[in-house]
Amino acid sequence: MRKLKSVIRAQQFDKRTVERIFTTAARMESSPPSKLLDGKIMASLFYEPSTRTRLSFEAAMKRLGGEVISTENAKEFSSKAKGESLEDSIRVISGYADVIVLRYYKEGGAERAAAFSEGVPIINAGDGIGQHPTQALLDLFTIKKKFGRIEGLEIAMVGDLVNGRTVRSLSYFLAKHYPKNTIHFVSPEATRMRDDIKSYLDKYKVKWFETKDFREILSRLDVLYQTRVQKERFSKSEIFDQVERESKKLSIRKSTLQYMKPEAIIMHPLPRLGEISYAVDKDPRAHYFQQARNGLYVRMALLKMILDEY
Amino acid sequence: MRKLKSVIRAQQFDKRTVERIFTTAARMESSPPSKLLDGKIMASLFYEPSTRTRLSFEAAMKRLGGEVISTENAKEFSSKAKGESLEDSIRVISGYADVIVLRYYKEGGAERAAAFSEGVPIINAGDGIGQHPTQALLDLFTIKKKFGRIEGLEIAMVGDLVNGRTVRSLSYFLAKHYPKNTIHFVSPEATRMRDDIKSYLDKYKVKWFETKDFREILSRLDVLYQTRVQKERFSKSEIFDQVERESKKLSIRKSTLQYMKPEAIIMHPLPRLGEISYAVDKDPRAHYFQQARNGLYVRMALLKMILDEY
Amino acid sequence: MRKLKSVIRAQQFDKRTVERIFTTAARMESSPPSKLLDGKIMASLFYEPSTRTRLSFEAAMKRLGGEVISTENAKEFSSKAKGESLEDSIRVISGYADVIVLRYYKEGGAERAAAFSEGVPIINAGDGIGQHPTQALLDLFTIKKKFGRIEGLEIAMVGDLVNGRTVRSLSYFLAKHYPKNTIHFVSPEATRMRDDIKSYLDKYKVKWFETKDFREILSRLDVLYQTRVQKERFSKSEIFDQVERESKKLSIRKSTLQYMKPEAIIMHPLPRLGEISYAVDKDPRAHYFQQARNGLYVRMALLKMILDEY
Repeated sequence: MRKLKSVIRAQQFDKRTVERIFTTAARMESSPPSKLLDGKIMASLFYEPSTRTRLSFEAAMKRLGGEVISTENAKEFSSKAKGESLEDSIRVISGYADVIVLRYYKEGGAERAAAFSEGVPIINAGDGIGQHPTQALLDLFTIKKKFGRIEGLEIAMVGDLVNGRTVRSLSYFLAKHYPKNTIHFVSPEATRMRDDIKSYLDKYKVKWFETKDFREILSRLDVLYQTRVQKERFSKSEIFDQVERESKKLSIRKSTLQYMKPEAIIMHPLPRLGEISYAVDKDPRAHYFQQARNGLYVRMALLKMILDEY
Repeated sequence: MRKLKSVIRAQQFDKRTVERIFTTAARMESSPPSKLLDGKIMASLFYEPSTRTRLSFEAAMKRLGGEVISTENAKEFSSKAKGESLEDSIRVISGYADVIVLRYYKEGGAERAAAFSEGVPIINAGDGIGQHPTQALLDLFTIKKKFGRIEGLEIAMVGDLVNGRTVRSLSYFLAKHYPKNTIHFVSPEATRMRDDIKSYLDKYKVKWFETKDFREILSRLDVLYQTRVQKERFSKSEIFDQVERESKKLSIRKSTLQYMKPEAIIMHPLPRLGEISYAVDKDPRAHYFQQARNGLYVRMALLKMILDEY
Repeated sequence: MRKLKSVIRAQQFDKRTVERIFTTAARMESSPPSKLLDGKIMASLFYEPSTRTRLSFEAAMKRLGGEVISTENAKEFSSKAKGESLEDSIRVISGYADVIVLRYYKEGGAERAAAFSEGVPIINAGDGIGQHPTQALLDLFTIKKKFGRIEGLEIAMVGDLVNGRTVRSLSYFLAKHYPKNTIHFVSPEATRMRDDIKSYLDKYKVKWFETKDFREILSRLDVLYQTRVQKERFSKSEIFDQVERESKKLSIRKSTLQYMKPEAIIMHPLPRLGEISYAVDKDPRAHYFQQARNGLYVRMALLKMILDEY
């Protein structure tokens, strides 16, 4: 009866575990064990609001019969007046809960938490521009469900690649476990994928390309992973304005669809702004809402594997 | 095994359904089925805080054995940085929950939500100056419980009738299903009931009167439905000041009670400010706290009829 | 089958009840009855955020199988626009819940609430500079667990004694039920313990001393109860700055430990700032995280004794 420990980083899993997460997630969808985590308590500890992610985790826990204690106001712990360190907060909360889902505003939060949680597993629900590993898992699960495999695919990541946690985590996963795909980074100049990821891909011999436009590659893509420009992470508004202008060319409209393969899928971590127009939603290739729902099954799988067994 | 669909508007129900809601609510009070909704999840999606309404719905769900995921911070979805449309948020949340209770800040929110919730029922918990149908149902249920009937009654609605969602929804219900009552609109000049409601009453041949003072009618009333002046909805403070002055005459004090029938009831959607003085609370005609509690039973009934059957 | 009523003030309990709370809390730790409060609902009504306290109560309720409805936003009830009195809010919420945990921003809130909750028990989770009786209970429980008795001990309370709710409540308890200890108040001049507590101790013939430095007494102490300077409660920043300077001498560092008895314990209600350095955490005398966890058991015990029996 092995149990999964903390979920901190995309790179932590071996391939067998990743595959196990996917088969477990598939079972969570087809036959959810509704009393499995009866009596267990999950703490949602969010240092910044991320209502969608929080509700997804909490629904996952409750669908398995578990209970939740929850705050989106955890920054109060470390407010000027109270000034508590993350480490202290984690040690206290680990006295109340069986698993802690942590959203932190600075890179490295989940790892710091895991070092002080006295054996209570931590699930990283995003730490600043760091990682968001459950998002990457649900992204891969979505691809796996659709194509039955994660190899030989042409995958484009489009948009704000410098600030996008999701595309970073996804790239790590692909490199380490599914290197036999081709990745296209498509972005404005100022939001190009960082070098650390490119080196990581090189290390694992993943074929990758970089471009400012996707017109030439659209017809070859199996997966178009679109992202929004994260305005809140730009310090200079001129750069943001320029990025936004260049991003317009990368938005997906109904007219874009004609260049894509019929069996391709369009993914997006959501929320979207204008980068996928509403007219696209009815096309069978629009896969982003199903992708969000897959997040529920992946999170159920992780909670099962952490609190029960696998 | 019919199920109720979304609850969007007071006008949507036929009379048989309304009566069914009342008999179910009565049963919820006398013998609550505590495990009925075991395994079901309700999402409380509040785009503006309304703690009282939210807690009432959540208590209702939990008294039936169901589970809740919850946010009063849903505006974060549509914040400047994230900018997601209500429709997208609803599509995502409908992947997590079996029913969504929605509080929205603009009229029409619940209807837009229902169009995109992929079959997951929506309950309107208030949309701007639009409707608040569960409040109207609990108001009527309160009258029915007290008098055993909703006809032949003299009902006064008092106070801020232009901004008051509750009196608007209540008027719709009365017109459509219980037209054989007499309605008195009692308000300052600037907060008179809008014409749309008056036309609706006329269409259903409901007798209605309008006045700025209730002294003449007090002794005839069966129901005095008092409301507060919704300061937060006035854009000009001069008008608010004038309304507040005129409202003073419409407040209910201990001395007001002597003019009322012994079997009359005083209702109020709460919160109250000065419009009912505390000295009135001990009078058996003070019915507003029981009215609030009736909300629990009505919401339990709706959740049962939506998620179970009726 | 007696039940505990509201928990408002440290002074309300007779000694038998206090001891009963401790034996029940010990049982909650060793063999928690996980379905005991199935079907019961606790309302967390927090007029100011206190995430740690709230999560502790909610975890306690859920570990007993009970359900929770919750807000940290209760001030919305009494916001300028809505302006509802605490009494009205309590009367409404008491219609939804079986027990109410109340955090209020002004002294006396819990007592006012209990007068209007129509038989629904209130648990005071802190009211301004008033009391925080469950904290005092968990503090005493921690001492009892460690020493097997609460007498013949030398107990120092250190830091901001004028604003510290916890040290006030603890002093009341000690005076009334466990007077055979010696208390040392150690604080900067401006944050000395108030006279009301000192008179109370005198009334019960408790030996107490006051000092600005703990060097002389360190070697005699069984319990060193450290507190943080509550910056947010100082209106003048000069006084705060002075207090902070003087507090530095009272902080506990690794070098402090050599002067303490090996079997002594260091307690702190948390959060801590600099008043206990992190290097102290690994010393077996560091007892503050276990103290926080004891809060869970004490709150489980209180909920059991209120909603079930004792």
